[in-house]
Amino acid sequence: MRVNNLRFKTIWSDNSKKIIIIDQTYLPFNFVKKELKTLNCAVEAIRNMRVRGAPLIGVTAAYGIFLALKECSSDEAISDASKKLISTRPTAINLKWAVDIITNKLLKIDNNKRELKAFNLAQKLSNEDEEINKKIGEFGSDIIEKIYKNQKSTVNILTHCNAGWLATVDWGTATAPIYKARDKGIPIHVWVDETRPRNQGSFLTSWELKNEKIDHTIISDNTGGHLMQRQMVDMVITGSDRTTYTGDVCNKIGTYLKALAASDNSIPFYVALPSSTIDWENNDGRNIVIEERSSDEVHFIRGLNSKGNLENLRITPFDTKVNNYAFDVTPSKYITGLITEYGILNADEEDISRIKKIK
Amino acid sequence: MRVNNLRFKTIWSDNSKKIIIIDQTYLPFNFVKKELKTLNCAVEAIRNMRVRGAPLIGVTAAYGIFLALKECSSDEAISDASKKLISTRPTAINLKWAVDIITNKLLKIDNNKRELKAFNLAQKLSNEDEEINKKIGEFGSDIIEKIYKNQKSTVNILTHCNAGWLATVDWGTATAPIYKARDKGIPIHVWVDETRPRNQGSFLTSWELKNEKIDHTIISDNTGGHLMQRQMVDMVITGSDRTTYTGDVCNKIGTYLKALAASDNSIPFYVALPSSTIDWENNDGRNIVIEERSSDEVHFIRGLNSKGNLENLRITPFDTKVNNYAFDVTPSKYITGLITEYGILNADEEDISRIKKIK
Repeated sequence: MRVNNLRFKTIWSDNSKKIIIIDQTYLPFNFVKKELKTLNCAVEAIRNMRVRGAPLIGVTAAYGIFLALKECSSDEAISDASKKLISTRPTAINLKWAVDIITNKLLKIDNNKRELKAFNLAQKLSNEDEEINKKIGEFGSDIIEKIYKNQKSTVNILTHCNAGWLATVDWGTATAPIYKARDKGIPIHVWVDETRPRNQGSFLTSWELKNEKIDHTIISDNTGGHLMQRQMVDMVITGSDRTTYTGDVCNKIGTYLKALAASDNSIPFYVALPSSTIDWENNDGRNIVIEERSSDEVHFIRGLNSKGNLENLRITPFDTKVNNYAFDVTPSKYITGLITEYGILNADEEDISRIKKIK
Repeated sequence: MRVNNLRFKTIWSDNSKKIIIIDQTYLPFNFVKKELKTLNCAVEAIRNMRVRGAPLIGVTAAYGIFLALKECSSDEAISDASKKLISTRPTAINLKWAVDIITNKLLKIDNNKRELKAFNLAQKLSNEDEEINKKIGEFGSDIIEKIYKNQKSTVNILTHCNAGWLATVDWGTATAPIYKARDKGIPIHVWVDETRPRNQGSFLTSWELKNEKIDHTIISDNTGGHLMQRQMVDMVITGSDRTTYTGDVCNKIGTYLKALAASDNSIPFYVALPSSTIDWENNDGRNIVIEERSSDEVHFIRGLNSKGNLENLRITPFDTKVNNYAFDVTPSKYITGLITEYGILNADEEDISRIKKIK
């Protein structure tokens, strides 16, 4: 997508196979590119959320395996790299999915062919992510178009966190339908949840929508319910970090509250997701282990001071405890539909298992 | 209640009838007292939330009338002061209630007796607020005690915003039952919603609970639903800025989302309120005009920098729109009970109208 009218992806390799990312910890105030030189750089980038979002984490981990193999191409090196990468973020399932796909293939071939193969597999995964998101965009934009044709006025879409192109290689999951609908000429306005404590909504989603010239308004996470009660939201689209094969969605903490409000006000609540986020081993979202992140994410906040410099402020009293669960689970009964690369599915086992048959 | 082990109220008059407040805009990092010298000081303090919370706004407005009469005791002066004070915050009904009670009484007496009468009426209102909150605390603590006797372990209470003693003259509304239960020896832990965008939870509720030595944890506003799903919350208590006589509660934006989550997880959701927040003219919360506050409250955040100084940071991209509705409405069907100075009421017209008969 566009940054100051130039096209970018969130991660890419140049001609000399350097792996480069947009370092998202500087957004929205600074646009910084960063080379991932080693496996440890990739691990650090995922853990500290220089890259984030389930699909992008998966692709970054794939490049991480390649970077590990540049140093050493033994079976042990592959196994060590896998473990290191998978341990960075426990909830997003794409991480394990991507790492498993690649390591299984690499272990079957000669050591001296592994580095090139790993690079090609990471590239392939990256390209596939783009294609998948475009398809999600096409299927999802049909839903937006129907709403538009029905109401004949700007479609107000609420989204939580960033499931935008910054959470993927390009296009995004929840935002892909928005970009595709915009391309069809449908007038759209997006309510952007701030998304505490890391503010991915105001720092990332707002920034990418601004660069794509899509009308939007930042709101505190508390606001969405009120807007829905007063008919100011026509649909909700969020992403997913892990989806049970029975249709429960584990996504950024707070998603569940918006799903409840959508349900209470009869507003369609869609989740856009690549099929790689489906957890085929899990039939109940209540079993998902929820990542707890550093308390400093709640104690401190980053922003721009009056001199224009990035700075951290403390925003809690000293000696107070905080808690920082990163995700929650939205039960399938609150989900109108799953927007996948295979089309719109009901959030239930019957419909989701159709994907397995196609695959 | 206590601040560093000394007893304070949020507003008081000294022997020479100086009116003094705790300036809450400096909390939790600095404890600052401020004299309200004139009507305009009182108006400014309410508008800029140096004092806030429906009950405390009412009492401050009452003192504001007294301050106006010190300058001029004419009918016009009373009428002008009323208008100025009522216009500061449109949603909290106590403001109009307090101003109307006092001005009606003052207009009936001679000009030269008005200043003293206004002072005495404000003092009376302040004392009554304390007594009302103590009663709310007693009735509410019975509910907490029942839960404790049933589960025989620490009672986990979630609260939103600050309906603590800082929102009243003393004791608080939602916190009064907590303080009274603590005094009965019941072990309590409070989940404190941060409460964006003004962070009254982390800035005020956490600070007052810390000073009262009550175990608590700050969470982002997104977190409560997840905690309720995983059985980590035993009850919710919030305050109310305006309550329809049919039982709908208008309170800090985001309250509605927590009520939905409580309902979805069969967790009792109580609202603690003095009967002065009841709007006897309104039978439907959807008719309540919701205050929209300055966008700067969303764009900027206040905190302590690394040098220990209070500072404001910008936390949204430049040239983005924000929206800042301050309240939402929780429909009566999601409310387990109203904790009032007259006892626990069902959130319905039949039970609420009993108060009118008693009054």
